[in-house]
Amino acid sequence: MWSTLDRAMMARAIQLAANGRYTTRPNPNVGCVIVNDAGEIVGEGWHQRAGGPHAEVHALRMAGDKARGATAYVTLEPCSHYGRTPPCAKALIDNGLKRVVAAMTDPNPQVAGRGLNMLKDAGIDVASGLLEAEARALNPGFLTRMERQRPYVRVKLAASLDGKTALANGESKWITGPAARRDVQRLRALSCAVITGIGSVLADDPSMNVRHSELGGLAETLTEDALIQPLRVVVDSNCRMPLDAKLLSIESPVLLVSCQAYADDVKAKLPAHVACLQLPAVNGRVDLAAFINHLGTQHNQVLVEAGATLCGAFIEAGLADELVLYQAPKILGAHGRNLLNLPDYQHMSDIPQLTLSDRRQLGADTRMIFKIGE
Amino acid sequence: MWSTLDRAMMARAIQLAANGRYTTRPNPNVGCVIVNDAGEIVGEGWHQRAGGPHAEVHALRMAGDKARGATAYVTLEPCSHYGRTPPCAKALIDNGLKRVVAAMTDPNPQVAGRGLNMLKDAGIDVASGLLEAEARALNPGFLTRMERQRPYVRVKLAASLDGKTALANGESKWITGPAARRDVQRLRALSCAVITGIGSVLADDPSMNVRHSELGGLAETLTEDALIQPLRVVVDSNCRMPLDAKLLSIESPVLLVSCQAYADDVKAKLPAHVACLQLPAVNGRVDLAAFINHLGTQHNQVLVEAGATLCGAFIEAGLADELVLYQAPKILGAHGRNLLNLPDYQHMSDIPQLTLSDRRQLGADTRMIFKIGE
Repeated sequence: MWSTLDRAMMARAIQLAANGRYTTRPNPNVGCVIVNDAGEIVGEGWHQRAGGPHAEVHALRMAGDKARGATAYVTLEPCSHYGRTPPCAKALIDNGLKRVVAAMTDPNPQVAGRGLNMLKDAGIDVASGLLEAEARALNPGFLTRMERQRPYVRVKLAASLDGKTALANGESKWITGPAARRDVQRLRALSCAVITGIGSVLADDPSMNVRHSELGGLAETLTEDALIQPLRVVVDSNCRMPLDAKLLSIESPVLLVSCQAYADDVKAKLPAHVACLQLPAVNGRVDLAAFINHLGTQHNQVLVEAGATLCGAFIEAGLADELVLYQAPKILGAHGRNLLNLPDYQHMSDIPQLTLSDRRQLGADTRMIFKIGE
Repeated sequence: MWSTLDRAMMARAIQLAANGRYTTRPNPNVGCVIVNDAGEIVGEGWHQRAGGPHAEVHALRMAGDKARGATAYVTLEPCSHYGRTPPCAKALIDNGLKRVVAAMTDPNPQVAGRGLNMLKDAGIDVASGLLEAEARALNPGFLTRMERQRPYVRVKLAASLDGKTALANGESKWITGPAARRDVQRLRALSCAVITGIGSVLADDPSMNVRHSELGGLAETLTEDALIQPLRVVVDSNCRMPLDAKLLSIESPVLLVSCQAYADDVKAKLPAHVACLQLPAVNGRVDLAAFINHLGTQHNQVLVEAGATLCGAFIEAGLADELVLYQAPKILGAHGRNLLNLPDYQHMSDIPQLTLSDRRQLGADTRMIFKIGE
């Protein structure tokens, strides 16, 4: 069904799409390649930022007249609706494309096959499903939001070989090395929101923002201006947030989530970039499912960077899609602090199911990515 | 100094030596390649079992007259002393070799340069030090015994990603999968002794022997007849060994190590293959350094397969040379049982130093090998 040329061109389109990884949210990453009858690439483009031109428009601009009679490879079905930009399906028709190959249909209910139908109705040869798994992997957050009405939840953990995060006295600097810490900055830059717990705030007073100077090599392609700071969320069930916390002093959005109301005098003192959200409680703590559903309408990927209790609660509630574990080649011993609080399971068959999807070395540390519950 | 041919031939000799991995103890693994002036291999051999011919003798037999004027590559300095076989240095001289290249000198005080000197005195061109690190890696146990008068101590552990060995209720079957369990059988087959603690005996009633049927692919080259069962050691400080333990019922040598004397009526009931050793106590437990020194005179490699306390005690005492960790892609949570009891360290700079030397995938599990204290 697919030729070698088809596969190569879609692979290139996927590669282009990934260039938008840190900057297109809440839109998906999309790439487009336009190829003439001689098999030559005449146009390339990718979606760069929400509100800017879609991938197809960039590629059509580059191709100009050469788009006529050519084939377009797009990593996602071209849109059919008037949003901040006119529909890409119309642009492909207007520019005389002969054939359009999509990696996948767009699960966005505003599109959902209408883009491909619009092309077919205009007499264009249309096909879909080429390198679909690879194209899906570009947009875990957008697809989870469209298909499950909630964000893709990534839980980040760092531990020794024996599963400890710190010595008994709390000393943990630096359990992982500089390469792993840079990678955490990169994960934050990927995320629409970074979630921590009040326990971590009280213990470590973190800032939770992305520090451009700590992005390593990524800082060369992701400029400080292009970098979008994630929403910083603190799960603060019982309103213990100290007003002098470092994360409140940094002027980018913060959301405090609690199951009680903050006192009026506290609210009055919160800076303008800090919002509060009161949610139902489960056993005296914020109902995490309700919280994630709330985020779902606005966020693609969220990162949980918290202690053993909050990370464990996300996993236990079945809300965590991915575990990113930074493992340091160290042993701390049983006195050390545990990585993850989970229920007192009675059978091995009750524990969460993990599937390794990636492993790589970051200096002396190893980063493992697991899909949860698949 | 070394030609490409030299390197290739020594690499081949190292490969041959490794064939004796499970069967030469307490002797070292040695390989030999004899190469004529045209660069053709005319003889090959490796040491197969203690009491049998050395590697050089096998290679000389294969080469016959073609050894005259040839070069011999040996992974260890040829021996100079009359043991169970005549000195190999003499055999190389008698067969008219022109050149002998050794990967390393033999640290055995009975040899220690005398073999190479004997060759030089006979007018043979002698060189040493080619692929020395690779040759040393063949014989961690023999070299540790010769150089440090004690065995090479390998601590084996198996845990989840969060460093747990079992659920709180003790359920652990099977935290690791069949490939990892086969690999543990292989480690036992490599070892002169396998050491466990009385706690593990009381909890799990293990047999601690090598089960030929569980060696997987290795069983094809390592026949049941050639397999040497390791000495099974139980560290039983306070003489709690139950007489009906499964490991006592299997007829191959067992050593019970305690810091008290076993009662006469217990001793009288022990089978003939079970020996007892009383050693000094440190804090009411067997002095592990004294125990390892005791083993040192007879054993190359020993394997510690025990619980969190005994494994931790070997590491804390600085007696563990290598950590073999089988990691299952599972999370058990903080209720689970800890991997390793170590002191309550106050600073990260106090923890043991580990260096990753090997990592490979065994089914769903990962095996990591760390050198300790390097």
